[in-house]
Amino acid sequence: MNRVCVVGAGAIGSLYAAHLAQVADVTVLTRREEHARALREQGLRVSGRHDFTATLAATTNPAELDDADLCIVATKATHLDQAASALEGHLPGATVMTVQNGLGAEEVVLRYGDWPLISAVTFMSGNRRGDSEVEYILDTETWLGPYAETPYKTVERTAELIVRSGLKARPFEDLRPAQWSKLIFNATVNSVSALTHLPHDPHFADRNGPAALGHLVHELVEEGKRVASATGVELHDDPWAMNVHATQRGSAHVPSMLEDIEAGRPTEIDLITGALVREAARNDVAVPLHEALYALVRAKELACASE
Amino acid sequence: MNRVCVVGAGAIGSLYAAHLAQVADVTVLTRREEHARALREQGLRVSGRHDFTATLAATTNPAELDDADLCIVATKATHLDQAASALEGHLPGATVMTVQNGLGAEEVVLRYGDWPLISAVTFMSGNRRGDSEVEYILDTETWLGPYAETPYKTVERTAELIVRSGLKARPFEDLRPAQWSKLIFNATVNSVSALTHLPHDPHFADRNGPAALGHLVHELVEEGKRVASATGVELHDDPWAMNVHATQRGSAHVPSMLEDIEAGRPTEIDLITGALVREAARNDVAVPLHEALYALVRAKELACASE
Repeated sequence: MNRVCVVGAGAIGSLYAAHLAQVADVTVLTRREEHARALREQGLRVSGRHDFTATLAATTNPAELDDADLCIVATKATHLDQAASALEGHLPGATVMTVQNGLGAEEVVLRYGDWPLISAVTFMSGNRRGDSEVEYILDTETWLGPYAETPYKTVERTAELIVRSGLKARPFEDLRPAQWSKLIFNATVNSVSALTHLPHDPHFADRNGPAALGHLVHELVEEGKRVASATGVELHDDPWAMNVHATQRGSAHVPSMLEDIEAGRPTEIDLITGALVREAARNDVAVPLHEALYALVRAKELACASE
Repeated sequence: MNRVCVVGAGAIGSLYAAHLAQVADVTVLTRREEHARALREQGLRVSGRHDFTATLAATTNPAELDDADLCIVATKATHLDQAASALEGHLPGATVMTVQNGLGAEEVVLRYGDWPLISAVTFMSGNRRGDSEVEYILDTETWLGPYAETPYKTVERTAELIVRSGLKARPFEDLRPAQWSKLIFNATVNSVSALTHLPHDPHFADRNGPAALGHLVHELVEEGKRVASATGVELHDDPWAMNVHATQRGSAHVPSMLEDIEAGRPTEIDLITGALVREAARNDVAVPLHEALYALVRAKELACASE
């Protein structure tokens, strides 16, 4: 595994690309030509928890991609379809790893090619500081698991590669328990934050008083757990405990869905809360609160788009 | 009934004050001295559906108020306590009429004096255009009913006075059916609008597609109807029909709660959705969706206040 393609150079894609460039040949596929040029000419600097500048290749043209052993699709869920379609007919030797929030990224990729797939969720976070710098903020793990027939061995080797690059990663034989824990956490925290404009702060864990926000957060988690249980998934982490723990960190994290709302961009609501609501319907589980938040965030996207 | 005091000269208070000044002696009690001075020196102009300038008295000092036959407390619910406390010990001969959104305004007023009370809800709307002009927009009715032991005759005479002044009014022997219809409508439409930033537009009545906003609006109305029914109130109007009807007008109305949120002011959520949630608890009716919106709007107030 020494040829890696990273699709999308937002904060997460940039962190993978820069680190992996320390142990492999990395090519970044971006949408904007000036972004690709900046990466080629200036390299990609990592600041924050690490400090180095990576040298890597970058292009906007999928036809220029050499084949790769690993392709990490690191776009937002809202750009996934476009990114996957750009890969159609390319990278025949690659295993493709998806790291999008929510559920269903793998199925989107499979519409455009029959690559072996790795499912992943990442808990690391970063902050793009221009086209050729990314700040590494939370140095938490990426969790990987096989999708469909992908051998577990491939997952282990991919996790090893990521660890050798300086990031944290852990292979799982079945990723769904972790994926579902994160799905429920994200469906809850992201949509509440997008509607209230609160960062993920201690209000999310506060259950004192009748109108305290923590009651709603807790009920949303409970609805999510009932869906997970109906699909036969035993959660890896309790999403309520994840919520409490995350709000006890020093500074409150601004969830990506709130960033999207404030920037007037479409959110990932369809692949996060939408996925949870669809799984609930398929399994005959009532999720009235998630349905309410789904409708409210979608309506808010309309209002933001028309501003 | 020829001496009237109007407390609060927002859009609604200004419409009452200017019109009633055509048929009675009107004194306006405001909070800002320059507002009172503008009203004394320039009068109060009505534009829009009517066009005239009223001459009236205005003061910020309750001690300067002569006794009155009628006192209309027309502040927002968020300023009601402050306004009622200013009246303590004054206007011994007045019947006090409350027109706040939600429930419970009468109890707040009674903390400061034992005036006979009239409950009212108003459907008219206006737009303040500075301290001495108000635009009369929707010329819909004010509905009045007796509170506690207030004789119905007093309600009828008050409604007649308002009608003689050029506004629309209708007396009811029992206002609660109308008050509850408006409560459920407001708890639903105001909070959905405050969270989504959508004006009250056709999305609120749209039930096509699984995540359509109209499903949520309909469920919120249904929860509210169950509470009304448990308290023994038969609704005067179906809030869902009110919602559909209002969204079919030409231009979409911006609910006051959205105005408040966008201006960074506290909202009336506690006297509207809060009142509905408290009545539900008292009557053992489950209102999970209204509870969710109550918590979300309160959390959003926090986020707005800290910006």
